[in-house]
Amino acid sequence: MSRAALRRGAPLVPSAAPESPVRRVRDVRGVAILGSTGSIGTTALRVLARQRERYRVVALTAYANAALLREQEELHAPEFVGLVNGTATGSAEWAHGPGCLVAAATRPDADVVLNAVVGAAGLDATLAALGAGKRVALANKETLVVAGELVAQAAASGGGEIVPVDSEHSAILQCIAGRPGTEVRRVVLTASGGPFRDWPRERLAAATVSDALQHPTWRMGRKITIDSATLANKALEVIEAHFLFGLAYDRIEVVVHPQSVVHSFVEFVDGSVLAQMGVPSMELPVLYALTHPDRVPDTGVPPFDPVELSPLTFEPVRADDFPALQLGIAAGRAGGAAPAVFNAANEQAVALFLDGRLRFADIPRGIASALDALASLPSGTRDALLAADREARRHVKLLFAC
Amino acid sequence: MSRAALRRGAPLVPSAAPESPVRRVRDVRGVAILGSTGSIGTTALRVLARQRERYRVVALTAYANAALLREQEELHAPEFVGLVNGTATGSAEWAHGPGCLVAAATRPDADVVLNAVVGAAGLDATLAALGAGKRVALANKETLVVAGELVAQAAASGGGEIVPVDSEHSAILQCIAGRPGTEVRRVVLTASGGPFRDWPRERLAAATVSDALQHPTWRMGRKITIDSATLANKALEVIEAHFLFGLAYDRIEVVVHPQSVVHSFVEFVDGSVLAQMGVPSMELPVLYALTHPDRVPDTGVPPFDPVELSPLTFEPVRADDFPALQLGIAAGRAGGAAPAVFNAANEQAVALFLDGRLRFADIPRGIASALDALASLPSGTRDALLAADREARRHVKLLFAC
Repeated sequence: MSRAALRRGAPLVPSAAPESPVRRVRDVRGVAILGSTGSIGTTALRVLARQRERYRVVALTAYANAALLREQEELHAPEFVGLVNGTATGSAEWAHGPGCLVAAATRPDADVVLNAVVGAAGLDATLAALGAGKRVALANKETLVVAGELVAQAAASGGGEIVPVDSEHSAILQCIAGRPGTEVRRVVLTASGGPFRDWPRERLAAATVSDALQHPTWRMGRKITIDSATLANKALEVIEAHFLFGLAYDRIEVVVHPQSVVHSFVEFVDGSVLAQMGVPSMELPVLYALTHPDRVPDTGVPPFDPVELSPLTFEPVRADDFPALQLGIAAGRAGGAAPAVFNAANEQAVALFLDGRLRFADIPRGIASALDALASLPSGTRDALLAADREARRHVKLLFAC
Repeated sequence: MSRAALRRGAPLVPSAAPESPVRRVRDVRGVAILGSTGSIGTTALRVLARQRERYRVVALTAYANAALLREQEELHAPEFVGLVNGTATGSAEWAHGPGCLVAAATRPDADVVLNAVVGAAGLDATLAALGAGKRVALANKETLVVAGELVAQAAASGGGEIVPVDSEHSAILQCIAGRPGTEVRRVVLTASGGPFRDWPRERLAAATVSDALQHPTWRMGRKITIDSATLANKALEVIEAHFLFGLAYDRIEVVVHPQSVVHSFVEFVDGSVLAQMGVPSMELPVLYALTHPDRVPDTGVPPFDPVELSPLTFEPVRADDFPALQLGIAAGRAGGAAPAVFNAANEQAVALFLDGRLRFADIPRGIASALDALASLPSGTRDALLAADREARRHVKLLFAC
């Protein structure tokens, strides 16, 4: 080996795995985005606008924002556009109604389906995409919480696969990076702690909607921002991690990390810990869900400067003051219909809180009451789970007489 | 897939690579340890005592500590024992003299050679082991600094490979974990900053040996502890990273991290950053150098508790006050004999400082003077590099009239 060859950068260390089969730049992969006008959807379109050599948008769906959907159609020229709620049309013919989600998710020209629908409404599209052998880039964590076992069955029978878009789960996937699950001792999900991290318990009960919408580190949709304030979001993420990575609940922990720079930790059986880090930005998890296990050059993440991000701090979760977390983890451990009941009761309580009809402390109260009443409902099928979901919503409305 | 199957933990996320070929537990691999009575050597024997199902000690060598070597022989029953300096013997017949290093490193029953010799004396054994197709677990970073290109040639021609034992380079290897080098944008080595991290410049000049030996986070040998105080150690590590990972110098940075919990960062081309973390302990890097890319259950690393380790802080390097760092990086960039001159001048200056014959600030002065005079010496062969090494030592002794 000449000096020149060495200087050009042949590493001395052994590679763990043969390099991935070379992909020709021309192998452009098709992406369908469900929920394109939301926070994750618009983030994804910013990423995809930079990655046109590798990906093209083949389908877009939105719930009701026809004006933005039309703009997105002009910019990205997908073959398929779907509007769930409305009759507007754009340049091409648009599909309408809830069925447009499954239609977009199963198109032959879609290699990857980004499911960024909010709530249990995303379930059928996830099942259909997995059944059709697609990669599902999953931002819709409710899908896994409500029906993790059905999702696993659909993936197994249809040959599809799930790659998480949540920053914590993307971090875990990046740290595991193809090592077998038997090498993982446990994972530690980081939680910003939300806007109420250091509020005394007395003050929490009276927290207002506008208090709860002030997330310290992440800009997100309203529902997930409230879930971050109650820590219900972290419970959903624990359940999601259980299904995604096949980890028992006692191997999934949560730590509060107010700066949201460490996106999660993985501890391996030899005691080593890997963490994935970066300035909070959803552009990376979206991109990585497309490229995993490869990485492609991109500018979506602000430069990493540990000096500027210093100090990084970690605190225990105040589990007694934020009961939604333990309620959700207990629901996950119970299994069956319990996670679906947890999720639906939480969605309903948050909606009522956002409408000014509940107090902040009523959210976990509503969840606990629904779980007490409904956790043992049947759960073996999609219809049974969706029935449990409806029952839980009804229970919360009745409980608070809304 | 039944619920029971899922609960047993089939992950939903796709694996990046097929699992490693199953190794039978009975495939016990032979390990030769060069420098078994030093800090890394004794650490390695603690690790190996726990891992007897997977590894057995086939050879041990020490410089002069015959008493400890004899104890180690009793405990680990190697086939070969070598003593570089001395005529003592143990249970079996011992080899004596400097040649025992190469003899141990090239034994057919050694699959892995842990080179924990201090200084340039470890070079021939590294070259011989690589030439014989061994995995070299390299704690002797001077080997790469003095003769990185020769080492690369030996690895290429003999089929050997190097796995680093330095905690920083082990961290980088764990973060890269088999991904191609083209996906790495840069690495950031962490430095504790040593005992003088926050000393004002005026006070530094008069720092004593006992001041310099008070390392805040790592227990190590005397020479490397002084190198940590001057930051010369971090310069050696930058050069080591250059050769190990095939990285240009402008893609290797250093940040001060007083807690020594983050062992280094890797930033990828998509902007994502991975870090390897843990309570400071050399047991993990030693073990990982044996098992890479696999991981095996071990208890050598204290449990990871981010709350207990909080806060983690990061500071810029005080490059003007610790000139050895920039001198070493400049020597690395210059290439040729310069890194060997840097290393030898530093070794000599540190020895004189430890003897009480130089002031702390004389260490970088001696290095700078040697580099000015000798950086363009011939460097194409092992003998030329060892001549440059000798010249640099002589230069430093003359400079300070020792």
